[in-house]
Amino acid sequence: MKNSKVVKKSSEVKESSRRDFFKKSILYSASAIGASSFLAPTSLKANEKEIMHEAPWGTKLGDPVNKNLYGLPSVYEHNNIRRTHDLLSSGDAYASISMCPIHESEGIITPNGLFFTRNHGGTAQVDPNKWRLMIHGKVKKPIVLTLDELKKYPSETRIHFIECPANGSPEWRGPQFNSLQFMKGMMSSAQWTGVMLKTILKDIGLEKDAVWMLAEGSDNASNPRTIPVEKALDDVMIVWAQNGEALRPEQGYPVRLIVPGWEGNLNTKWLRRLEFSNKPWHSKEETSKYTMLQESGKAIRYFWVNEVNSVITSPCPEKPWTHLKKGELVEIEGLAWSGRGTIKHVDISLDGGDNWVEAELKGLVLPKSWTRFSYIIKWEGKPLLLASRATDDVGHTQPTIDEETSKVGVESVYHRNAIVTWEITKKGECNNVQIRKHKKA
Amino acid sequence: MKNSKVVKKSSEVKESSRRDFFKKSILYSASAIGASSFLAPTSLKANEKEIMHEAPWGTKLGDPVNKNLYGLPSVYEHNNIRRTHDLLSSGDAYASISMCPIHESEGIITPNGLFFTRNHGGTAQVDPNKWRLMIHGKVKKPIVLTLDELKKYPSETRIHFIECPANGSPEWRGPQFNSLQFMKGMMSSAQWTGVMLKTILKDIGLEKDAVWMLAEGSDNASNPRTIPVEKALDDVMIVWAQNGEALRPEQGYPVRLIVPGWEGNLNTKWLRRLEFSNKPWHSKEETSKYTMLQESGKAIRYFWVNEVNSVITSPCPEKPWTHLKKGELVEIEGLAWSGRGTIKHVDISLDGGDNWVEAELKGLVLPKSWTRFSYIIKWEGKPLLLASRATDDVGHTQPTIDEETSKVGVESVYHRNAIVTWEITKKGECNNVQIRKHKKA
Repeated sequence: MKNSKVVKKSSEVKESSRRDFFKKSILYSASAIGASSFLAPTSLKANEKEIMHEAPWGTKLGDPVNKNLYGLPSVYEHNNIRRTHDLLSSGDAYASISMCPIHESEGIITPNGLFFTRNHGGTAQVDPNKWRLMIHGKVKKPIVLTLDELKKYPSETRIHFIECPANGSPEWRGPQFNSLQFMKGMMSSAQWTGVMLKTILKDIGLEKDAVWMLAEGSDNASNPRTIPVEKALDDVMIVWAQNGEALRPEQGYPVRLIVPGWEGNLNTKWLRRLEFSNKPWHSKEETSKYTMLQESGKAIRYFWVNEVNSVITSPCPEKPWTHLKKGELVEIEGLAWSGRGTIKHVDISLDGGDNWVEAELKGLVLPKSWTRFSYIIKWEGKPLLLASRATDDVGHTQPTIDEETSKVGVESVYHRNAIVTWEITKKGECNNVQIRKHKKA
Repeated sequence: MKNSKVVKKSSEVKESSRRDFFKKSILYSASAIGASSFLAPTSLKANEKEIMHEAPWGTKLGDPVNKNLYGLPSVYEHNNIRRTHDLLSSGDAYASISMCPIHESEGIITPNGLFFTRNHGGTAQVDPNKWRLMIHGKVKKPIVLTLDELKKYPSETRIHFIECPANGSPEWRGPQFNSLQFMKGMMSSAQWTGVMLKTILKDIGLEKDAVWMLAEGSDNASNPRTIPVEKALDDVMIVWAQNGEALRPEQGYPVRLIVPGWEGNLNTKWLRRLEFSNKPWHSKEETSKYTMLQESGKAIRYFWVNEVNSVITSPCPEKPWTHLKKGELVEIEGLAWSGRGTIKHVDISLDGGDNWVEAELKGLVLPKSWTRFSYIIKWEGKPLLLASRATDDVGHTQPTIDEETSKVGVESVYHRNAIVTWEITKKGECNNVQIRKHKKA
């Protein structure tokens, strides 16, 4: 019985997979790649002695397992951090922004320590035992909930990005930063756990003329914002956990709102109050700020949705191709996202937009979530103008810079979703060149 | 144009969702719940003054945005940590285990700081510039790769759990720990990014008689383990990132193996070498250890797969129902997983296994990944014996304790997947009672 069990275990792994491997090759996305390999021509030959006996960390005991009961990154990763910049702050460190190192990000989860942060009055340090959430106004049973009471509701877990509507704002007047982190790092993505707002509203009952909701934080800035009830009843969540643990203080500990796909500032941190009414509030944050100034001098208000967008994350100015040799295979990779739904397809151009080919969508493709795309080429050491163009499942496609500015001018700082172009030089350097008209490379 | 744009934005949110809300109620999983609510009868009434003006953190500036360029948990979360226990260590802090607080986990992602850790010789601190990976033996082109060379390969990102085969081992001889963390915390789940091993093997070519692979770490313990080539060519990954950032030191920084669904110790950390052969290695780690001792005195070797399993995470001994009032609604929630594939369904028993009802699977349901299940009841303040029983898509179902011990006895410390039972007392306390025969509650 014992031996037969061993044999069974072994044979349960499909033997066919090994045979198949010898029969067929793996197809890459570009059919013209031919017999190329991802191996660098300079790859070392196997050196058993060096590998097996000379690593200094392999000849002594490591750290004890109980050294870090809450773990931290390797000391060698000290450069993978959030970054601030004077050009993008409001003049002080309290009402400011700290950008996510998205050039170092992988997949569709941002670790909590690197999630981008935008504060209007600093990071509030909230005592969860003193925290309360009030839901009132045009509801049948106004309530105040403690954190324990909130967590009694059945929980939901979803992966969503959050993006500041000012993401990419310096680019409206031309390329400013030769950096992906400073250009598009006002966004991150996480697994959020909490309760669907509609579940609570079922318990307390909405009045029939409740058509607007005010969300307000308990920090000194409070950041009041008006949200239509239709959205609140659709997919809005009240969350207490991010990537499997309690929210971080700078993300609204202990409780924040998640308004999937809509402007980051609507995802109220340190949430204290939801009020329902038959009229919108026209708060400071939706009159003097978070409006979209057009060339006419008039502003668009209540522009909530982060439109379909994408950017190539590898290469990027921080991750150039200077180490590549002529004729090597290389993966072009990036992020696409849409506040309206799911990414349908992403096109890649190597010549600044004259020709487009469809990229492969990699991994999970979820609504209102980062989606990874990939396209593999053999780089011949020639200059390129690399661009990506995403389309979502409501049929919206990213505009060119000219298409976008012809509609709203260059006075806005919000909701930029024009196609981003990187220049690859023949040395493999990668530069931010926001070309206004697409031309032959 | 501007005004029409605003109107369009607003109306794009489905008005129907608001109308539907007033027409139909949300259905919970138990049809007999009736008109109950998740609101505690003790819920406070709305107190605008207290909520809006008396939170101490709302009357001053918070911390500056650049205080933590790599963020940390709230100081109030100091109790959400990994934990070690003398009973589960090998007598020192180097060859030991640190368990994940899965009673505090949400969703299917474990934050990197809380991922369970099992070391054989301490946590190696590896210099990524000095790290090398050798792939040799029965391959056509043996190679040594630097980290940069490895990262040139096209990346894949997948969510998988890792489970130590000793997870739950103290329970073989009866209930030992009144704690979910100590009972089932030798597992965690993450988003892994790296290269599929088969992609590299395509480049370097396998010899036709390569049927076994040795994986070895560069730490002092090296932990050599034999893996069949069929698995290596199926879904094995060489990964450098976990939840969007570099691996943590205690998870094998800079590079580890991911062998989805198989014993945690096969997921070699600080990976230095993969060797291919026509024979298995029979290393110390697969002869003296990681074998399954049966009552006959004979041991099962090469038992790789973590079989279908589940546990209720709320309630659990750390999260009892002592705060619940008679007649309140409450969500029973838990984790199910299988190293063979995808969770197909999970059944719940309230009476120690006499009767079973099907739970709802919540959120993402992915292969070889944690899957959340949920079942909502109205608790009438009576004692219960709560159990969960998962079935995967190859048709395997968790055994009862009697079924499991009748096959392998109680001498093993590995691969326990018998049904777990919690006792709920009339006061709402939750206790670990691993009942051997299911009886009427």
